[in-house]
Amino acid sequence: MGKGQDLYKKAKTLIPGGTMLLSKRPEMFLPENWPAYFSKAKGCKVWDLDGNEFLDMTIMGIGTNALGYGNDEVDEAVRKVVQDGNMSTFNCPEEVYLAEQLIAMHPWADMARFCRTGGEANAVAIRIARAASGKDKVAICGYHGWHDWYISTNLSEEEGLSGHLLPGLQPAGVPKGLVNTTIPFNYNDINAVRKIISENPDLGVLKMEVSRNHGPEPGYLEEIRKITKENNIILIFDECTSGFRETFGGLHKKYGVEPDMAMFGKAMGNGYAITGVIGKKEIMQAAQKTFISSTFWTERIGPAAALATLNVMEREKSWETITNTGKEITRRWKELGEKCGLEVSTAGLPALTTYSIKSKKDNWLAYKTFITQEMLKVGILASNNVYVCTAHTEEHVDRYFYELEKVFRKIRTFEEGEDVFAVLEGPVCHGGFKRLN
Amino acid sequence: MGKGQDLYKKAKTLIPGGTMLLSKRPEMFLPENWPAYFSKAKGCKVWDLDGNEFLDMTIMGIGTNALGYGNDEVDEAVRKVVQDGNMSTFNCPEEVYLAEQLIAMHPWADMARFCRTGGEANAVAIRIARAASGKDKVAICGYHGWHDWYISTNLSEEEGLSGHLLPGLQPAGVPKGLVNTTIPFNYNDINAVRKIISENPDLGVLKMEVSRNHGPEPGYLEEIRKITKENNIILIFDECTSGFRETFGGLHKKYGVEPDMAMFGKAMGNGYAITGVIGKKEIMQAAQKTFISSTFWTERIGPAAALATLNVMEREKSWETITNTGKEITRRWKELGEKCGLEVSTAGLPALTTYSIKSKKDNWLAYKTFITQEMLKVGILASNNVYVCTAHTEEHVDRYFYELEKVFRKIRTFEEGEDVFAVLEGPVCHGGFKRLN
Repeated sequence: MGKGQDLYKKAKTLIPGGTMLLSKRPEMFLPENWPAYFSKAKGCKVWDLDGNEFLDMTIMGIGTNALGYGNDEVDEAVRKVVQDGNMSTFNCPEEVYLAEQLIAMHPWADMARFCRTGGEANAVAIRIARAASGKDKVAICGYHGWHDWYISTNLSEEEGLSGHLLPGLQPAGVPKGLVNTTIPFNYNDINAVRKIISENPDLGVLKMEVSRNHGPEPGYLEEIRKITKENNIILIFDECTSGFRETFGGLHKKYGVEPDMAMFGKAMGNGYAITGVIGKKEIMQAAQKTFISSTFWTERIGPAAALATLNVMEREKSWETITNTGKEITRRWKELGEKCGLEVSTAGLPALTTYSIKSKKDNWLAYKTFITQEMLKVGILASNNVYVCTAHTEEHVDRYFYELEKVFRKIRTFEEGEDVFAVLEGPVCHGGFKRLN
Repeated sequence: MGKGQDLYKKAKTLIPGGTMLLSKRPEMFLPENWPAYFSKAKGCKVWDLDGNEFLDMTIMGIGTNALGYGNDEVDEAVRKVVQDGNMSTFNCPEEVYLAEQLIAMHPWADMARFCRTGGEANAVAIRIARAASGKDKVAICGYHGWHDWYISTNLSEEEGLSGHLLPGLQPAGVPKGLVNTTIPFNYNDINAVRKIISENPDLGVLKMEVSRNHGPEPGYLEEIRKITKENNIILIFDECTSGFRETFGGLHKKYGVEPDMAMFGKAMGNGYAITGVIGKKEIMQAAQKTFISSTFWTERIGPAAALATLNVMEREKSWETITNTGKEITRRWKELGEKCGLEVSTAGLPALTTYSIKSKKDNWLAYKTFITQEMLKVGILASNNVYVCTAHTEEHVDRYFYELEKVFRKIRTFEEGEDVFAVLEGPVCHGGFKRLN
């Protein structure tokens, strides 16, 4: 066993859950055998604590590095910040330039606030929207972080978030006074939204992801926009995950539907922490009626990295590259499935593509574990998804599929009667986030 | 007018409030004339956008840089992270090492979680404590961030936070269902705590700053510890501001009173974003019963900077240096007041020292503005406080007092009848945070 698993064993005694992010728990990939920690990352390669090199054909930092790990121009901007100073009694000018750029990219918006995590950006947006609407109730569709306002969904209905976040989530530690303040609805079901609105005259805010596992049905987003406007409900698009994947900015630009507010995160700083909220002036100014302030929102690396990232993205049209690569990967999963006699279904934005194999014996999680186990042996990080970056070349994709074919052929034998559990070298991986609604 | 004020005018049209942190709004210092933005910061010097150099004798990044701006060893650790990669699909080992160190420094604690802002660390601690206690009600004393759980204090009593955060704060955008979940109490008033506990059997958590404007009266913290234990209430010390100012770790180490949980922030990464929560195992494990997870909590700069910072702090005993310098500054403010016939009172930890001048005409805010205005002209950032760093030498302090004496003498003439408003070149500064209770 490598140094990584040794350290992770210690981590579990020091950190509840072992990591800071559920999706990076080794158990989500390969319990007891995932390398767990990195010493180095560059392009689409990651090195573990033993110096082993891996091709990252999975979550790429959970989607933070659309330009690859260690993009030279972004890193150079960060180095300059380290040289000149990250923090001071004065503010950093980069936050103003970044606000200007995001608003130029989204002309429906007028003002911005920045944070350093997606959960914060979500909570800031909700605070501002509630202050602007004067109403407490929020309708949601999607994954919007860990804060009380969101997890409170499960106070009234234990499975309220099962299709948006995780099944069976207990809202432990969320005050019961928040019951019925956040109401979930299923994606692409416009009647569900109509019903929520008609039953809740005190609903002031509707927050959703622009796309879930599958995109919007024709007219769905337009209708959401229309009925929120008619009912004086602030429409927020959570673009923390979807931003910069198909357009230069929010995914909503693709559909031509404009919200009242939007949040960005993940890819915006190419691996450096920066998230933000943009919105219309009359709404954003409500931030002044309340208190939203944090020391580390003034650090400089975040906005400096974002400015450099946006610059590279715009010049390289990175969203086109990652979408094309993602489409090709998606196509080849299906093709490989057909070739190997496996039923493969795919989902997600092309740049955040996911697949699963239908198992007669309901063994999909065991197969997923087996895929990770076998691919790791040949130096590839693989699960059931690829978050594409511009450093993923055709050669990388070819190598991935060359190795994956051997694993798929083995899975075919499991479907035909061989025992997958006999060849698993550790426990089956945990089920992860669900974006199935 | 300099470039900074030009940019700030633009910022106010793009960012509600103009900045990300209330305490860094130019209006808090010198409305219309504060340089507002920095190009560079090093040691205890800051350069504005016009290249003007200033000696920072005020908030030093709001207390983030106890080792001075751009500490070489800390910056070197960050440069290495930029070189090797800030983010990946794997986790960074530094978070485990940092957990280990913080727990070694605080042997009453067993486990840690990390965040990137103080507000987050506060909200994470409350979520975990509520999950562990199974109770929603929290008693608080101090400044604990911007999140709903804290600002909800003002839902029941408009001035509930006036002595802890700001007077007259409207809890706009905070759901009304949180009313009466957070109950404020005044520092050093043990009977207030007894009363809250007896009236609220559903109180599960008590969070407080270890010291406010003045330290604890003999036996106060011990009694807090005793009655929280007797009543099965989780005691949390918010050390985001006080940590590393007088001890290597929490200020509570000075008083020998151990909480069940504590938060750290600000100084811990010497200007890089990192905050954390530590606590006893049986409490911290409650994090597993709920959902607390964020993408950017996995970035590497934060814990790497913290490890380097702790290393330098321990070797240099920085808390002794800044405390000694702070005591000297505090002593000299009083001395200067006496010399100039002004009544000066001081408050705060020595390393975060504050003063005010008693004005017969209630002109203190005008005097404070005048001090900032005049000191700025001689290249010194000054307000009514100094957050001390190890880069503040005797020469810096001497220069500060040499210039401050001229300003104090002028203030004496205002007290004797001259008009301070006639010499102010812009509006009076805004009142800031209050830590008066």
